[in-house]
Amino acid sequence: MSIPEITQKLLAAKKDKGLSFTDLEKILGRDEVWIAAVIYRQASASEEEAKQLVEALGLDESDVEELTEYPVKGLGPIVPTDPLIYRFYEIMQVYGMPMKAVIHEKFGDGIMSAIDFTLDIEKEEDPKGDRVKVIMSGKFLPYKKW
Amino acid sequence: MSIPEITQKLLAAKKDKGLSFTDLEKILGRDEVWIAAVIYRQASASEEEAKQLVEALGLDESDVEELTEYPVKGLGPIVPTDPLIYRFYEIMQVYGMPMKAVIHEKFGDGIMSAIDFTLDIEKEEDPKGDRVKVIMSGKFLPYKKW
Amino acid sequence: MSIPEITQKLLAAKKDKGLSFTDLEKILGRDEVWIAAVIYRQASASEEEAKQLVEALGLDESDVEELTEYPVKGLGPIVPTDPLIYRFYEIMQVYGMPMKAVIHEKFGDGIMSAIDFTLDIEKEEDPKGDRVKVIMSGKFLPYKKW
Amino acid sequence: MSIPEITQKLLAAKKDKGLSFTDLEKILGRDEVWIAAVIYRQASASEEEAKQLVEALGLDESDVEELTEYPVKGLGPIVPTDPLIYRFYEIMQVYGMPMKAVIHEKFGDGIMSAIDFTLDIEKEEDPKGDRVKVIMSGKFLPYKKW
Amino acid sequence: MSIPEITQKLLAAKKDKGLSFTDLEKILGRDEVWIAAVIYRQASASEEEAKQLVEALGLDESDVEELTEYPVKGLGPIVPTDPLIYRFYEIMQVYGMPMKAVIHEKFGDGIMSAIDFTLDIEKEEDPKGDRVKVIMSGKFLPYKKW
Amino acid sequence: MSIPEITQKLLAAKKDKGLSFTDLEKILGRDEVWIAAVIYRQASASEEEAKQLVEALGLDESDVEELTEYPVKGLGPIVPTDPLIYRFYEIMQVYGMPMKAVIHEKFGDGIMSAIDFTLDIEKEEDPKGDRVKVIMSGKFLPYKKW
Amino acid sequence: MSIPEITQKLLAAKKDKGLSFTDLEKILGRDEVWIAAVIYRQASASEEEAKQLVEALGLDESDVEELTEYPVKGLGPIVPTDPLIYRFYEIMQVYGMPMKAVIHEKFGDGIMSAIDFTLDIEKEEDPKGDRVKVIMSGKFLPYKKW
Amino acid sequence: MSIPEITQKLLAAKKDKGLSFTDLEKILGRDEVWIAAVIYRQASASEEEAKQLVEALGLDESDVEELTEYPVKGLGPIVPTDPLIYRFYEIMQVYGMPMKAVIHEKFGDGIMSAIDFTLDIEKEEDPKGDRVKVIMSGKFLPYKKW
Amino acid sequence: MSIPEITQKLLAAKKDKGLSFTDLEKILGRDEVWIAAVIYRQASASEEEAKQLVEALGLDESDVEELTEYPVKGLGPIVPTDPLIYRFYEIMQVYGMPMKAVIHEKFGDGIMSAIDFTLDIEKEEDPKGDRVKVIMSGKFLPYKKW
Amino acid sequence: MSIPEITQKLLAAKKDKGLSFTDLEKILGRDEVWIAAVIYRQASASEEEAKQLVEALGLDESDVEELTEYPVKGLGPIVPTDPLIYRFYEIMQVYGMPMKAVIHEKFGDGIMSAIDFTLDIEKEEDPKGDRVKVIMSGKFLPYKKW
Repeated sequence: MSIPEITQKLLAAKKDKGLSFTDLEKILGRDEVWIAAVIYRQASASEEEAKQLVEALGLDESDVEELTEYPVKGLGPIVPTDPLIYRFYEIMQVYGMPMKAVIHEKFGDGIMSAIDFTLDIEKEEDPKGDRVKVIMSGKFLPYKKW
Repeated sequence: MSIPEITQKLLAAKKDKGLSFTDLEKILGRDEVWIAAVIYRQASASEEEAKQLVEALGLDESDVEELTEYPVKGLGPIVPTDPLIYRFYEIMQVYGMPMKAVIHEKFGDGIMSAIDFTLDIEKEEDPKGDRVKVIMSGKFLPYKKW
Repeated sequence: MSIPEITQKLLAAKKDKGLSFTDLEKILGRDEVWIAAVIYRQASASEEEAKQLVEALGLDESDVEELTEYPVKGLGPIVPTDPLIYRFYEIMQVYGMPMKAVIHEKFGDGIMSAIDFTLDIEKEEDPKGDRVKVIMSGKFLPYKKW
Repeated sequence: MSIPEITQKLLAAKKDKGLSFTDLEKILGRDEVWIAAVIYRQASASEEEAKQLVEALGLDESDVEELTEYPVKGLGPIVPTDPLIYRFYEIMQVYGMPMKAVIHEKFGDGIMSAIDFTLDIEKEEDPKGDRVKVIMSGKFLPYKKW
Repeated sequence: MSIPEITQKLLAAKKDKGLSFTDLEKILGRDEVWIAAVIYRQASASEEEAKQLVEALGLDESDVEELTEYPVKGLGPIVPTDPLIYRFYEIMQVYGMPMKAVIHEKFGDGIMSAIDFTLDIEKEEDPKGDRVKVIMSGKFLPYKKW
Repeated sequence: MSIPEITQKLLAAKKDKGLSFTDLEKILGRDEVWIAAVIYRQASASEEEAKQLVEALGLDESDVEELTEYPVKGLGPIVPTDPLIYRFYEIMQVYGMPMKAVIHEKFGDGIMSAIDFTLDIEKEEDPKGDRVKVIMSGKFLPYKKW
Repeated sequence: MSIPEITQKLLAAKKDKGLSFTDLEKILGRDEVWIAAVIYRQASASEEEAKQLVEALGLDESDVEELTEYPVKGLGPIVPTDPLIYRFYEIMQVYGMPMKAVIHEKFGDGIMSAIDFTLDIEKEEDPKGDRVKVIMSGKFLPYKKW
Repeated sequence: MSIPEITQKLLAAKKDKGLSFTDLEKILGRDEVWIAAVIYRQASASEEEAKQLVEALGLDESDVEELTEYPVKGLGPIVPTDPLIYRFYEIMQVYGMPMKAVIHEKFGDGIMSAIDFTLDIEKEEDPKGDRVKVIMSGKFLPYKKW
Repeated sequence: MSIPEITQKLLAAKKDKGLSFTDLEKILGRDEVWIAAVIYRQASASEEEAKQLVEALGLDESDVEELTEYPVKGLGPIVPTDPLIYRFYEIMQVYGMPMKAVIHEKFGDGIMSAIDFTLDIEKEEDPKGDRVKVIMSGKFLPYKKW
Repeated sequence: MSIPEITQKLLAAKKDKGLSFTDLEKILGRDEVWIAAVIYRQASASEEEAKQLVEALGLDESDVEELTEYPVKGLGPIVPTDPLIYRFYEIMQVYGMPMKAVIHEKFGDGIMSAIDFTLDIEKEEDPKGDRVKVIMSGKFLPYKKW
């Protein structure tokens, strides 16, 4: 997995400015995960959003254009080796079929969209150890019959 | 992916009884996704939980034991072909790095546990089309230094 | 790739009855490709549709239930070896990026749904050799920003 | 997947010129998908076609030659991670066998050619959400017996 | 790789009858490689051809039908381990690009069809050791532009 | 698959000189496929052959040495995506077992050598479309018993 | 597997200084394996730890920052070819199930954490040949039920 | 991964007898992990050891022979999906290179044997959560020069 | 890897008879490795050799025929997990290129045949630990030029 | 597979000096295969050995250090495409199980070490064609029980 140059540049600027993703969320009015996805070139920004982001990071406008392009998505590898990312692969392996069963029962045949989709990450403080809360919300798409 | 015999037997009994996972959630006092995970042999029940489940499904006690065993988890294949399950793989591919960046920023170096972990599925009614809400909550485990 | 037993049974009955997929299309009022998808357990029928299909094939009602279940989809293998199916893999390999470029230009960032989706196959008579026409129509799903 | 330099150059020129693939279709008298395939080096142009394209994009003739070469086709990876391209992989996985069954029934043993083949993409306006229409037309090639 | 039952039955009958593929070629008026492909369920016979084959092997007519079906082709695995079959994989690996270069130069952009295709195997006697001669003849299919 | 620099240099020189592989065959007295294999660094030339080739292409002698080295052969990837090369993979997948059966019957247990091996490509003119003829001739190597 | 530049720089400095990992363990007050993990960018140091390390190796402070970043972990490839590393893969293949059985019996359903985890390597002198002792200690994480 | 029949039989008998691996360790005078490895057919017992084990489990002598055979080892799959076993894969991915560096520094070029090897599992009680301690001891094998 | 039934039958008979591979070598006048290869269906025997083998093992003649057939060779999996077999894979990985360099230097461009090939295994007694000696002898096959 | 720069430099110097591996064997008093392994960075030399090698090749001492480092071994790819190297993969696939059976019978449960291991290559002159003789000698390592 090679990190695109633009991503490295934006992350370095973000670090220099001492801005967190949460700060960017406040400045741009967009969720921090989505902003991170734009930075990692997994989502495309409008020209206005790109300008805001570039400005917030103190970079000049020449980087705007690249952030508005529609990226080739997916960062590989097939099975991730990074432990944090792997856990999401493991959740899919272990809970994939149970989730399929419950979603079908609640909604019928179809899927949860990963396009008409939002993903939030929250920190749940807990005396036994803080918890990572990941909230996904995807439109249910029923299989069309024809 | 071959579905274990016990799973097929339990699902058939559940269908005959006309019970939904939500019904089982009420009867057992455990979340429906966890119950589905037990049925698909991705989680192990205590003897008492297994008895309750078997009884609710109208099966006899001989199936209790198998549900208390510690299963070899993960249902394969490496990249799932089922569209519903694949979307979770896609979320990991597309949002894996952005999630990693945000989680590290909020918590430091470490991971979200997939073991000290809960997963809920809710139906969000929406006039533009109902939405599937998936809420994951995993304990943050900081990397130990030694 | 193992063909499910129910599929083999339905195909054998279809052959005995001398019915084509086009005949089934007329009887059921559903497209022949969708009916073939039900038979191969890649799509789920309503109880009424399943009854009509089973009846048309001269089978008894005990097979109805299985056809209404939500199948684990995707027939494997990862790269198909069957020449007819492989050509669709090749089209994805060769024209995937050009299609991505054209679709993004016409619609913006997003995808063609493979769920809110129809697929027709027509025979185009041609003196230089008949042609297979495959018409796919999938709802465009724009990436949600959040 | 690395995008060839010539592709990047042509796409940048196309952007500078503010030309869409549809504009190029009108200028060259060739379908926009085929033109995109030439740009992504998945198809080879005649010298005349290459000249027209290069001229339309305001580049000089030194790029003509490369566009007339016969490229090594297929953009990898084995299973695409980009969601837009993956949906075509999914269609092959889910509808591959049903398509095989219907095509064989209509045409006998053989395949749809991916060489004597055209692919059009149209936008179907729809109040419930516009649709992507993909029309493939490939010559049916019956298996030769010998 | 599992050999289909029908293949095993036909090969056993062929052995009992003491018939070689060359004998079958004479009886059926079809090339022995094609006949072997029918037996291994990689090619489909007409009803008449299937009857001739089954009769020649002394089997009864109940096996005719299966031989007329359109098989899912390709025997796997991805990289063959059998030394005889591997050598053809090696030829593709080592001489694939040189063949591509020579074929393109002689014919332009396109492919050799593997469908409108014949394959003969001959024994060339040679005092230094007999040689296997494999003659492939496939229609050249030029890439269509559209 | 990355094409070696020496290959690119030789192909460019060949193009500049306007020489076909057939022309090189006449000049060098070696088959054009073998010459293409030398150029793609899949075969090694003698010093004399390398000199002739380099001279014919108008290059200076400094390139001779590299062409006499024993290359690491095989151009990858595991399953080729280029349609022309894939067809040879498909022939191996579809006709591998039938060829094995026929060759064993004609020769006994052993293989066709891919080393003591020649490969010719001819153009068969045909009013229904020209055909690519590929003639392979490999020494039969019987399995040694010991 | 490509070794990051920072790793190469640190290892070269360590060699120049004639420092062993054990020396670094003494200087930093952290285990040598953990320090090696920081150097190979598989673990992240605090700013203070990074400064100590960089200073010990005689490098200037500009390298501190990179060592405090949260790396993408896992060095690939999927199955390691290096014999020393492969043996740990082999231990997982051969003793994975027996370890699973014993750990479950001692602790119940759950896992040994690889995050709240330490790993020590000791040299056991032995007249029949010294032995490598690897001591892993990971917190047992019981599966949460919900 | 399919569990051998003999393993299932032995585990069922062990359960019926209410014996833990630790009990078996006491009875046989062999480590519990090694005994588990024999039961999972990853290690071979002497006839005497097999008799003791079979007797302890209340089975008759007909099972002795199979336990003395030299098994084909390794339980697959290539990347384990079971979370407990995966963590050992992850340790190899994350700490493989650091371990390699430290072992080479302490011992020179060579490996830790996985054959002249022992593996113990201990439970470390800890108020913050019990810990799994895994102690591996393998003979260091220096690379022979010749 | 599934062991063929005939192999299991022959190995069981060999065990019952108390015959070693070396005993069979003496009885049949063929090397024990080759005999083991026949038993594992990796080599084919003549009818006479098969009879001798079957007789030596006390089985009746009905098993002769299967041993004379030309097997599909190669026992899989792609990377062996069994430690004994893996070491030969490792030798290929580690010493493959050095062997290639030395063999080419001694013989020119070509290969060592694995068909016109013998393989012997000897026990070298050694006070520091006995050694396994594997002697391979394969005909050098020079690359034919054409 | 990319050849390390140091390897290319050493091989070029060896060629310039006109030295064969056999010559180096005489100069260094080490086997030519081991020397080739050092050159391909699959084995590590002592400082003295590295000096001798570098001197013999007429290079200066700056290259000594790299040759004494402990390399990451294994040259990939998973299944080699080079015909000479592939044959060793094929031998493992075809004769792996027979070798396992014979070695276990002669030595008991254990493996042939690939570390305490030597490998010689000899040319056997033979009127029917010279033969490559490969002699491997590895210490037998019996499985330790504990």
